[in-house]
Amino acid sequence: MNAAVLSIGTELTRGELIDRNAAWISERLTGLGCVVVEHMTVPDDLERIAAALRDLSRRARFVVATGGLGPTSDDLTSEAAALASGKPLVRHEPSLEAIRERYAAAGRELTPSSMVQADLPQGADVLPNSAGTAPGFGVAVGESRCFFMPGVTLEMKRMFDDHVVRRIAPEVERTSQQVRLRTFGLPESRVGELLEGVEAAHPGVTLGYRASFPEIEVKVLAEGDDDSSASAKVAPAVEEVRRRLGDAVFGEGTTTYPAYVGRILRDRRLTVALAESCTGGLAGSLITDVPGSSDYMLLSAVTYSNAAKTAVLGVSDELLRAYGAVSLECAEAMAVGARRISGADISVSITGIAGPGGGSEDKPVGTVFLAVAGAEGPARGERFHLSGDRRRIRTRAAYLALRLVAQAALG
Amino acid sequence: MNAAVLSIGTELTRGELIDRNAAWISERLTGLGCVVVEHMTVPDDLERIAAALRDLSRRARFVVATGGLGPTSDDLTSEAAALASGKPLVRHEPSLEAIRERYAAAGRELTPSSMVQADLPQGADVLPNSAGTAPGFGVAVGESRCFFMPGVTLEMKRMFDDHVVRRIAPEVERTSQQVRLRTFGLPESRVGELLEGVEAAHPGVTLGYRASFPEIEVKVLAEGDDDSSASAKVAPAVEEVRRRLGDAVFGEGTTTYPAYVGRILRDRRLTVALAESCTGGLAGSLITDVPGSSDYMLLSAVTYSNAAKTAVLGVSDELLRAYGAVSLECAEAMAVGARRISGADISVSITGIAGPGGGSEDKPVGTVFLAVAGAEGPARGERFHLSGDRRRIRTRAAYLALRLVAQAALG
Repeated sequence: MNAAVLSIGTELTRGELIDRNAAWISERLTGLGCVVVEHMTVPDDLERIAAALRDLSRRARFVVATGGLGPTSDDLTSEAAALASGKPLVRHEPSLEAIRERYAAAGRELTPSSMVQADLPQGADVLPNSAGTAPGFGVAVGESRCFFMPGVTLEMKRMFDDHVVRRIAPEVERTSQQVRLRTFGLPESRVGELLEGVEAAHPGVTLGYRASFPEIEVKVLAEGDDDSSASAKVAPAVEEVRRRLGDAVFGEGTTTYPAYVGRILRDRRLTVALAESCTGGLAGSLITDVPGSSDYMLLSAVTYSNAAKTAVLGVSDELLRAYGAVSLECAEAMAVGARRISGADISVSITGIAGPGGGSEDKPVGTVFLAVAGAEGPARGERFHLSGDRRRIRTRAAYLALRLVAQAALG
Repeated sequence: MNAAVLSIGTELTRGELIDRNAAWISERLTGLGCVVVEHMTVPDDLERIAAALRDLSRRARFVVATGGLGPTSDDLTSEAAALASGKPLVRHEPSLEAIRERYAAAGRELTPSSMVQADLPQGADVLPNSAGTAPGFGVAVGESRCFFMPGVTLEMKRMFDDHVVRRIAPEVERTSQQVRLRTFGLPESRVGELLEGVEAAHPGVTLGYRASFPEIEVKVLAEGDDDSSASAKVAPAVEEVRRRLGDAVFGEGTTTYPAYVGRILRDRRLTVALAESCTGGLAGSLITDVPGSSDYMLLSAVTYSNAAKTAVLGVSDELLRAYGAVSLECAEAMAVGARRISGADISVSITGIAGPGGGSEDKPVGTVFLAVAGAEGPARGERFHLSGDRRRIRTRAAYLALRLVAQAALG
């Protein structure tokens, strides 16, 4: 069952406001089993709104619109809906009464422009607004049912859940199932290659990708004749994706990599410390984004200057002179120092050149050394060359440090 | 001159991702003097993308599209652009060479699926990607010029500013002027109150707001008959906004608060150290986001555990027992310790309860203590109560620490 989302407002087409409503409504519609075929955003312009409604009604059984229902002169949605549906605007007395009561309760005077909010297309299916003044409504445009709600997010969400859902749900048969696999460690192109042929081997299954750097989500979506046939298709496809991507898959649903690493530490009752240089605190910030991380996170020594590396972590002047701060030797000494000073079970260090300046022929921008120190044996370091700008290099380096923490914790 | 924005991706129509690109592009297009008449979002579907292009090309002189240029099987934008423009897809050798170089620099093997990113409509106007792999391009569809860019925000923004702007600007007669004032420290509702009446006092000027938590941008837009009449209107309005908002305005254009603070430190040849607890490295990460920050940033001691506060910063056991880690006394001792160990001119500390757990009646979630230590006098601390979830509390606390750095540096 096709659906479309229409957002109305010049503040949106001018880019003064990010449209968060469209994503929320689309997620709800998808959850109800609809296929959202389009979002459209138009300015506060009578003809354009009406044209958009006619357009979308040709492609979608349901159109869910927000915005332009308020009392000001640029609120034209009801008029446009009347135009597109071929019905005159008439004053809806129960809605006017509700508006009057809300104004009285707030001690405000009911003005003519406020009363206009009760003017709706004749025969409209009125959707009460429990959180605000302007009522919503539903009308038919061609073969399509169009719903109109306020742009104020709180009012819209309540109206959708309280009134729109039960007007859509009975018509929609759920025929799809989706599993979201979370991955880290493979570039997007490599993920695509490893999964080549999965769709062909599993008819009715499509794969989708979403990169939220540096994590990549693989969505496995199965369409069937009904709910259970979709479920039966999705499970073996998920298994195959997991097998092909190996340990790059760290979870399902909405889990993040820092949360995954945190759970490993918590399960094993291990503590961690970091020594950061080029990441400047980003690795510590990622780990401590997770509520309750104080159970396993002890310290991140962000030793940006050489003197701080010496004073806080005990990296010797001789070492810094001989090898430089961006070196395997320095990374290992930083990891050892962080573990010693914090008493953590595991410590990981990061030192590198995030750019744009500071690179050399021998150590170009993107050169990063990581090291790990634990209970057994000496610290072990590794050299990486990371690509991208300062932000990408720092982010990837911080994630690689988290992976090193996880690997050390898993033994 | 009409323009339209097309966003491509099933993750958008399913509502899994909020479309922030469309607002950013619209703002830029509006700034160039275009009238954005529509946003459209379609799924990764060849026919729908092509139909959207044909549709939008009837209404807009410029169509700016993002998404679907990557290497995976659901990236169909180039093919759809070829279809809509009536040109065959051909391999663009210089782009292939650029992709090859990028892969080689990253030490990755160039695979067939990655090479597909160099397949562009014949005769396309290629837009190099300085921040990623997939090139963008421009093609004609009917009377419209369509530009295609990656959906990855960083790559898109650079490509737009470096290549698309100068392809659009010469065709647009500029009749508006916009100045973006960057602010930190006032809530959005307070900014609105302080600026009440500015529009009425300056006919032809409109104010817009965009919150990018915790920074708020105030846009002053003046429309005139031509460029110079718009300029003449915008200047006095900007002056009035600056006067009303006082030192909450820290810059114009695209400058960020960490860059502003960094410039103050650099101009005064001052160095800084941090001692962080609840922010977990976020404050250090913000400061070191700025290229060249190693000139003034020496250390951030992220002492998450009490033992680390003692071992690294010398906060005494007695103090921690008497007042707790979340206290004015601890904040002051942390600031003193960070300054002593790093030798920095200024040090700032942060300790608090970011939640969701850990609050008490006396110190509820959102309680944060900041302290600053400098060359003169003892450390001085301050207590804050911040609202919102864990992420907002941490972000605001980190920004308040940056403000304390700036205030100390300015004397």
